[in-house]
Amino acid sequence: MLEQVVCLAAVTVLGLLEQAYFALMVIYARRKYSVSPPATTGPPEFERVFRAQANCSEYFPIFVFSLWLAGVFFSQAIAVICGLLYLYGRYRYFHGYAESTQGRLGPLYFSAKVQWVLIALAGLGITCTMIQVYL
Amino acid sequence: MLEQVVCLAAVTVLGLLEQAYFALMVIYARRKYSVSPPATTGPPEFERVFRAQANCSEYFPIFVFSLWLAGVFFSQAIAVICGLLYLYGRYRYFHGYAESTQGRLGPLYFSAKVQWVLIALAGLGITCTMIQVYL
Amino acid sequence: MLEQVVCLAAVTVLGLLEQAYFALMVIYARRKYSVSPPATTGPPEFERVFRAQANCSEYFPIFVFSLWLAGVFFSQAIAVICGLLYLYGRYRYFHGYAESTQGRLGPLYFSAKVQWVLIALAGLGITCTMIQVYL
Repeated sequence: MLEQVVCLAAVTVLGLLEQAYFALMVIYARRKYSVSPPATTGPPEFERVFRAQANCSEYFPIFVFSLWLAGVFFSQAIAVICGLLYLYGRYRYFHGYAESTQGRLGPLYFSAKVQWVLIALAGLGITCTMIQVYL
Repeated sequence: MLEQVVCLAAVTVLGLLEQAYFALMVIYARRKYSVSPPATTGPPEFERVFRAQANCSEYFPIFVFSLWLAGVFFSQAIAVICGLLYLYGRYRYFHGYAESTQGRLGPLYFSAKVQWVLIALAGLGITCTMIQVYL
Repeated sequence: MLEQVVCLAAVTVLGLLEQAYFALMVIYARRKYSVSPPATTGPPEFERVFRAQANCSEYFPIFVFSLWLAGVFFSQAIAVICGLLYLYGRYRYFHGYAESTQGRLGPLYFSAKVQWVLIALAGLGITCTMIQVYL
């Protein structure tokens, strides 16, 4: 049974590593711009890195839930491809946002689109399963 | 086996859509009150919408984890009912908070109570399973 | 099959209770230091409690995902031990941070190390499963 989810698990671990990477970038930005905890405001350069990580963290559970639902109820292979695209989009979003607020927009729209695809696939797969089970 | 969790999955997708809706509301509030990222402070009307979404996002993983634990270890049907009540409570919380800080309290207490029921059911189901397995 | 995950489920419920405890501590701190929502800034004593809870909330899904991946793909027993250590570290982190920014560092490094162990075990278990499945 684990073979039906092992690739979803692998993408999730990649996502965990990406989140850890973003967290480290915030620690470096705190040192570079001398913004000690618990402060979360400072120069715009720091605030952009801080908000980029906060935004990625906020959407990470949503991504993982939709990845697994799409992978289990629709198709592991398609969910994995979407998952990798999403993580790539978030990587570009983080570095785009760190450079300028404008720079976050392209990758943000890209990863939002991939996120919607995952939710749609999950919804489709769950609907089909419910029809099979209850009708 | 999927029929034992398909309704939990459906409630989770509903929750994902609700989170997406809250996120869109923040984007509209940013435009309406001219608060550009990375700023998170501004007029009280904006800050209430921002905090309402932040609070819902923060508790969303806690909700999903307890929904699935209660549904798998106790009862899918009861967990689904609690899940739908929780999402309804969060919808009223978001719009109550957007109108006034006072307006968030009723729905907040309601969804907190439903959240506690889900955690209690999860704890009860897990305890019973542990007794069966280890005693 | 549930016996292979019931202890992971129990640790997750403990984690949910710990998150609820942190959330209550923020409510008490809001009353004590008269910081009404939606404000998130105030005296340093309040901001430390607020940020301690925000940080624990942010990493809670990451913890739960890695706990379950390590428990399912590597070893439930070892994941459970790491999970309990992590929750204990977060408890000490929260109270250390509430007292002083310096007081958060020891428990933070401790729980970060345990978090890395969980991610490493998950990665190892998933890699072994992928080798078995695909080679």
